[in-house]
Amino acid sequence: MTTDFDLVLRRARVATASDVFDADIGIRDGRIAMLGHGLGPGRQEIDAAGRVVTPGGVDGHCHLDQPMTPPVRMADDFDTGTRSAACGGTTTVIPFAAQVKGESLQAAVDDYHRRAKGRAHVDYAFHLIVSDPTPTVLEVELPALIAAGYSSFKLYMTYDDLKLDDGQILDVLAVAREHGAMAMVHAENADCIEWLTQRLEAAGRTAPRYHAHARPMLVEREATHRAMALAELVDVPILIVHVSGREAVEQIRWGRAHGLQVHAETCPQYLFLSAEDLGIDDSYQGARCVCSPPPRDASNQQVIWNGLADGLFTVFSSDHAPFNFDSPEGKKPGGEEVPFRHIPNGIPGIETRLPLLYSEGVLGGRITLNRFVELTSTNPAKAYGLHPRKGTIAIGSDADLVVWDERTFTLDNTMLHHAVDHTPYAGRTLRAWPSLTLSRGEVVWDGQVFHGRAGRGQFLRGGEPTLAPRRRTA
Amino acid sequence: MTTDFDLVLRRARVATASDVFDADIGIRDGRIAMLGHGLGPGRQEIDAAGRVVTPGGVDGHCHLDQPMTPPVRMADDFDTGTRSAACGGTTTVIPFAAQVKGESLQAAVDDYHRRAKGRAHVDYAFHLIVSDPTPTVLEVELPALIAAGYSSFKLYMTYDDLKLDDGQILDVLAVAREHGAMAMVHAENADCIEWLTQRLEAAGRTAPRYHAHARPMLVEREATHRAMALAELVDVPILIVHVSGREAVEQIRWGRAHGLQVHAETCPQYLFLSAEDLGIDDSYQGARCVCSPPPRDASNQQVIWNGLADGLFTVFSSDHAPFNFDSPEGKKPGGEEVPFRHIPNGIPGIETRLPLLYSEGVLGGRITLNRFVELTSTNPAKAYGLHPRKGTIAIGSDADLVVWDERTFTLDNTMLHHAVDHTPYAGRTLRAWPSLTLSRGEVVWDGQVFHGRAGRGQFLRGGEPTLAPRRRTA
Amino acid sequence: MTTDFDLVLRRARVATASDVFDADIGIRDGRIAMLGHGLGPGRQEIDAAGRVVTPGGVDGHCHLDQPMTPPVRMADDFDTGTRSAACGGTTTVIPFAAQVKGESLQAAVDDYHRRAKGRAHVDYAFHLIVSDPTPTVLEVELPALIAAGYSSFKLYMTYDDLKLDDGQILDVLAVAREHGAMAMVHAENADCIEWLTQRLEAAGRTAPRYHAHARPMLVEREATHRAMALAELVDVPILIVHVSGREAVEQIRWGRAHGLQVHAETCPQYLFLSAEDLGIDDSYQGARCVCSPPPRDASNQQVIWNGLADGLFTVFSSDHAPFNFDSPEGKKPGGEEVPFRHIPNGIPGIETRLPLLYSEGVLGGRITLNRFVELTSTNPAKAYGLHPRKGTIAIGSDADLVVWDERTFTLDNTMLHHAVDHTPYAGRTLRAWPSLTLSRGEVVWDGQVFHGRAGRGQFLRGGEPTLAPRRRTA
Amino acid sequence: MTTDFDLVLRRARVATASDVFDADIGIRDGRIAMLGHGLGPGRQEIDAAGRVVTPGGVDGHCHLDQPMTPPVRMADDFDTGTRSAACGGTTTVIPFAAQVKGESLQAAVDDYHRRAKGRAHVDYAFHLIVSDPTPTVLEVELPALIAAGYSSFKLYMTYDDLKLDDGQILDVLAVAREHGAMAMVHAENADCIEWLTQRLEAAGRTAPRYHAHARPMLVEREATHRAMALAELVDVPILIVHVSGREAVEQIRWGRAHGLQVHAETCPQYLFLSAEDLGIDDSYQGARCVCSPPPRDASNQQVIWNGLADGLFTVFSSDHAPFNFDSPEGKKPGGEEVPFRHIPNGIPGIETRLPLLYSEGVLGGRITLNRFVELTSTNPAKAYGLHPRKGTIAIGSDADLVVWDERTFTLDNTMLHHAVDHTPYAGRTLRAWPSLTLSRGEVVWDGQVFHGRAGRGQFLRGGEPTLAPRRRTA
Repeated sequence: MTTDFDLVLRRARVATASDVFDADIGIRDGRIAMLGHGLGPGRQEIDAAGRVVTPGGVDGHCHLDQPMTPPVRMADDFDTGTRSAACGGTTTVIPFAAQVKGESLQAAVDDYHRRAKGRAHVDYAFHLIVSDPTPTVLEVELPALIAAGYSSFKLYMTYDDLKLDDGQILDVLAVAREHGAMAMVHAENADCIEWLTQRLEAAGRTAPRYHAHARPMLVEREATHRAMALAELVDVPILIVHVSGREAVEQIRWGRAHGLQVHAETCPQYLFLSAEDLGIDDSYQGARCVCSPPPRDASNQQVIWNGLADGLFTVFSSDHAPFNFDSPEGKKPGGEEVPFRHIPNGIPGIETRLPLLYSEGVLGGRITLNRFVELTSTNPAKAYGLHPRKGTIAIGSDADLVVWDERTFTLDNTMLHHAVDHTPYAGRTLRAWPSLTLSRGEVVWDGQVFHGRAGRGQFLRGGEPTLAPRRRTA
Repeated sequence: MTTDFDLVLRRARVATASDVFDADIGIRDGRIAMLGHGLGPGRQEIDAAGRVVTPGGVDGHCHLDQPMTPPVRMADDFDTGTRSAACGGTTTVIPFAAQVKGESLQAAVDDYHRRAKGRAHVDYAFHLIVSDPTPTVLEVELPALIAAGYSSFKLYMTYDDLKLDDGQILDVLAVAREHGAMAMVHAENADCIEWLTQRLEAAGRTAPRYHAHARPMLVEREATHRAMALAELVDVPILIVHVSGREAVEQIRWGRAHGLQVHAETCPQYLFLSAEDLGIDDSYQGARCVCSPPPRDASNQQVIWNGLADGLFTVFSSDHAPFNFDSPEGKKPGGEEVPFRHIPNGIPGIETRLPLLYSEGVLGGRITLNRFVELTSTNPAKAYGLHPRKGTIAIGSDADLVVWDERTFTLDNTMLHHAVDHTPYAGRTLRAWPSLTLSRGEVVWDGQVFHGRAGRGQFLRGGEPTLAPRRRTA
Repeated sequence: MTTDFDLVLRRARVATASDVFDADIGIRDGRIAMLGHGLGPGRQEIDAAGRVVTPGGVDGHCHLDQPMTPPVRMADDFDTGTRSAACGGTTTVIPFAAQVKGESLQAAVDDYHRRAKGRAHVDYAFHLIVSDPTPTVLEVELPALIAAGYSSFKLYMTYDDLKLDDGQILDVLAVAREHGAMAMVHAENADCIEWLTQRLEAAGRTAPRYHAHARPMLVEREATHRAMALAELVDVPILIVHVSGREAVEQIRWGRAHGLQVHAETCPQYLFLSAEDLGIDDSYQGARCVCSPPPRDASNQQVIWNGLADGLFTVFSSDHAPFNFDSPEGKKPGGEEVPFRHIPNGIPGIETRLPLLYSEGVLGGRITLNRFVELTSTNPAKAYGLHPRKGTIAIGSDADLVVWDERTFTLDNTMLHHAVDHTPYAGRTLRAWPSLTLSRGEVVWDGQVFHGRAGRGQFLRGGEPTLAPRRRTA
Repeated sequence: MTTDFDLVLRRARVATASDVFDADIGIRDGRIAMLGHGLGPGRQEIDAAGRVVTPGGVDGHCHLDQPMTPPVRMADDFDTGTRSAACGGTTTVIPFAAQVKGESLQAAVDDYHRRAKGRAHVDYAFHLIVSDPTPTVLEVELPALIAAGYSSFKLYMTYDDLKLDDGQILDVLAVAREHGAMAMVHAENADCIEWLTQRLEAAGRTAPRYHAHARPMLVEREATHRAMALAELVDVPILIVHVSGREAVEQIRWGRAHGLQVHAETCPQYLFLSAEDLGIDDSYQGARCVCSPPPRDASNQQVIWNGLADGLFTVFSSDHAPFNFDSPEGKKPGGEEVPFRHIPNGIPGIETRLPLLYSEGVLGGRITLNRFVELTSTNPAKAYGLHPRKGTIAIGSDADLVVWDERTFTLDNTMLHHAVDHTPYAGRTLRAWPSLTLSRGEVVWDGQVFHGRAGRGQFLRGGEPTLAPRRRTA
């Protein structure tokens, strides 16, 4: 007997950014070939039994095996990182190929391909990090790389080894405009942070919780305003990453109201963590939750929820930055507790991103299922030029699919598949988890067991962003 | 030979609010049964030849055969109105069953069904207009009608025979909240308009252009703010209809930033007309463009475009209000030119709504094709509880489809199928028009000839709005 | 020996809205005749000994002997009210001649003069309350009264017996514009209050604290926005009275930023009381603090302080509305505890206004002494056309002066000179009190003893407001 | 016969920031000794004949003999500059002692005293310009200089030789906070300006009018927001100098609404000039009006007028920066026309500041006479710790007085007393000019003839700002 499809996922409750409908999904050659009822037979058949099926998550902001200053080292490489992603329903990851100051961008890309090669279980694209926009980078490397499928890059307004000054940001944004790339901005004012940090240190205030004191909201607000002004000058869209609360949100609303094309990202830590998770005394347990910007408080969490519901936010990412806690390579970089300045910034979250938002956003009645798909999959795919291959359930799209099992349980780090020794969400009650993840039509997670295969993940070339029509030259 | 489908629309470039992809569309029993390449045969087959196919438009704001004070009479009834809609790509219309003060809501609904019966060529739902919220209306009729499929209603803050005071608006909004209906608000301050009108009349300023003087933007801004405050008090979403420009937009942005769930609608007249179209002297030609709120100016048009692009607006409707110009039943109600106060308010637009936005929005590079679908079809269907039956191209949805022919021509009223003797858009260059409109799988417009059949249009029961999760009781 | 002056106040530390300087003040015929060091002798001499001397307070918002619906009666008439004012440093009061619906404005003025005649200890002007703007009122009475020295009036957007609809407000504002009068607006949305009150009553929630539930901030915010819109339409300044907190303040800032000439008043109750003073249970003790708008909370108090410091507020008044608590004529109008709807609105404060602001504002380091004078004396005099006769220490101005004694004590109602049986500020620590009050050069309070004389107070004709140049006709 | 006073100015219509009243002004030892009618005789008597008399202007922002990079040289030194000031009614000037990078602040002060010595005709204080905040400057020099009477300093966010980075600004603001000094900020984003300038130059756009293209409003807006954020972090007031239009004004309103203590200055060029004065073609005549920020357009002028009227602006200064036009030392620094980058920034205005604002503001009905005094004299004196010695007409204040002659004439540069070869206001109709200027009781300008004397002007020590209570440590 001939089969019509490699795989038919039957009785799916298909959710896209626009719709929810019941259908069988016919998959051929790793792509969605047909949608409808009563599809012909598949070589393999899976009964979704009416469960919600969403496009696989696209994590537009995560860090895997990114070179750090020794002894610090990321706990997850492309193997463990994409394994963790897949088990949490994410089928596309976009980590960062980071230029080292003084070196070329192409070198960073080459190195990062070496790190990815043979290790990834799901597909991946690269963002670039431009830390040294020399004339060669601006005129030669960056245009060439954009054309070659590296169509997004991140600019830092903080961190000594990464930050650009305003003139450099303008230079890079001008390239983004000319070549149709997406510029992501980490918006925090470096000078303010350094100034506050020195004062805190001088006062002996070095426990993790002072990390939040060194990065108050105004530091993020100022940089957000500045980044928008720079983008306005160049007349190019930007995407502000990891927006943490009210003051930055107000700036972004202001920018939109003034006609600026500002996209915004937020992350689970700004919904589910607060500054108290950095410790309410000088305990160094809080080092686990040191990330930048720092989590804020309950009223800011509400502002973020409102922004997710009302369209302010374009994408919802993990900002997965995997450092072990109890390790000389991680949060205790010297092998012991260190002042907050020296704690590696970042928390793990590549696997928990979707289940957290599905549980509290969709099942908690805060956002629609369509909006969930849009934020976690469709929009990141559009922002980084991967749509419609990724980010949706449509004819011709990759068969990256997640079947959701709505059940209540308490999260524990042992349930996760990253290589990090903790999760900040341990102990939290979740109400859903993927019971199946398909990557290009292959089962990589069945709800119990990981079925990936290092190296099966493919590199994806990013094209021009499609969130909005490209700005025509005025 | 057996056929799999009643109709297969082949080689469509399918656009939804989320995606654009190539597929054949298999239609059975008036519904979309299958999407994919190489679908089995249909009894009828149409080759879209790679043209864009969108869901049929849902016009969430139009007036057809609505009873007026004689001699004024609407030029379009359900026959000519839905004919015009179909030829312009709109397959669902939602006109208004308007309560007469002193009479029951049910009477209005019954009367309106009589007017629709046997006449409609495409499907239709009814909004209610609540003009007399007696205890019986609030406690008995409205809840019963909502349950019966009349899940949206419009409240007027102006017009003597329709307007509610703030207390009445609160009463009706409380019903909307309790029963999950969508409240639409015409936001203009009646007292201000009357006060200005009297002064203009006393000064002999009665030409059509003074209509705009009597309704300056602040009149709309104030009422918009007030409507949001009333909705905030009741904690219920509202939808502000026909937003005309900057000041109202600023209020809506303010409301969203303060956590209010405010939806907003705009219409073609606020993109393509200006106060100058009401006449630059006392010529009565301007009567054609008398509508409320009045069209503003170029800078306000830009504000509306920005709002369409950036997510401020939820829906894009026609506010089709069909009055002949050269007729004692229309813009010259006494058979001759009349002071602006007595000119029937409204302009025709049910047929031109989609082509105008497709031409200038999509092809003009201002909005994406996805956003076009969302604004004109998906979101109105969601707002009024008709989704996913209407408003998208998805398995199980009605096969209401539009094939777009991208060609450039100059619009003339003779090309239109309404019964109105003019269009304010005559002379304008359009860049697209439907070459095919399907209503539940039947061709009702083939780009040249109308193939409707009075009475084939069905009444649609509206359910609960699905734009957002229903607010849980605090 | 001849004397140069009737009175010389020596060694004063003179404070105006602009300056602070040391000088002797020479007084002749009740006016300030000379300022300088070493003035010639006075018939009477008083040594201020370097103490701060401010202009006598001008209380631009207070209620004295205003006719109420029996059995309710105000506890203070012009005798006790102006006595209390004088002992607290206020030398000019501007209570309200309130039109009764169906009666003429002139009748209200005549009646109010009868009530004032022979009773006042300090000077007084009248605001009008326009509750029934008939054509005669608008075209005849109001213009005549403005010309005769009644150049300010208050409009109510709430209270059944006083409120005007928007059209009436426009009518009255147009008179204010044409004749150069100052319009004060009580901005609360009547319909919202009534709607909430009915629901609270239906739920048995009638204790005083529910008064605040019936008048949430949005009720004030909405009416503030609306009042500004009406004034914008007419192009006339307005003064929003008793602004209570953040949301109204935001609206006023918005109005100013949009070029509207909006003045604003606040009162001690919005700095020193909160909704908790209305009771935290169903105790009727809270009836004492029932006033409208209700006091809010600590964060709103801070917003009001900021507005006092940064120039948002133009004037600081008492809104003295004197009702006994334990009386059938007052807060227990039927002689027993009553539902909040029936509790007379208002709190006493004519005597404590200045000492409270001096203590917490000036000595508390929140505002300068100049700003204190401006808010409490100079600006109200300018707003109501009494400057420079009143409101400053300058050559030719009335010798209305206050010498401040900076000492710390605990306030008790027995210290006050009103006829009200309580003060909501009892128990509060004050840091200053007038040790001398002069009215037109006469000592009316010496820090211990009241020296007034019923009837010595004179009626003042109010002229055109001088806060800003009069708007020229566009 | 003994005389009571050195000088009596009789029949003055005295205007302060608070009041306007008629009085004689008795002057003794250069100070105002007495105010009143019928003062005793003076050695000298002048009849003001009822004319308006204001306090002498305090020009809180002007540049005199400030060292420039050769061949550029300022046309005015302390001699011609203070002569010009006096003839225009300004009796106190506060130019800038500018630190040279690599040198000490004290050296700058010493040098500047040498330049002033023996030359000034009216009194003067010094602002500091901190361009190199070394630890010694921050910890030693600046605190010592503040204590010694240099209590205000300016920080530049642009100009290569002056600009500070954000960390340096924080350092200096911390000193301002600790020692109670006033920090002035020139807010323009240096990197943006440089980036735009290079692009304009690359395109051959070097005519003066491109100066405005290189400094669009957003460049000022961004820096204004950033300056406020830095001040917020340190919790210290700042004063934003030469605010040019809407976007910066909106930021300042935003800052105030968020509780920040932000003072603002504007200048005549933002009321009376526009970008068109920089030339509408490539003519180099526009070099005359090159200043930073550049003048904007008519709608921005209106925004500035609104801000003057409604209290947004604290002070109104000249930003007098005197460069000849037709000179190798001035606007043609190489002796010929130069690209805009090399045109010295600044326009002359020390003499025209007051007459322009009096004519168009007071007599034009836009601001009150009190507000004129406040903006031009009282508030700058308070901002820089010179009040009440300077900035008002009060007992004990210096007898710095201006008698205003309200007459209409056309301005010509030959009427002015600066050493600059042009005025941008030539040809403008003025409606008032000082008919008398007194400096410490001496006539320095009599309406026709200048009566100054080089060296009679005294250095003034600036104290703590008194615009508001000093912020208490939180």
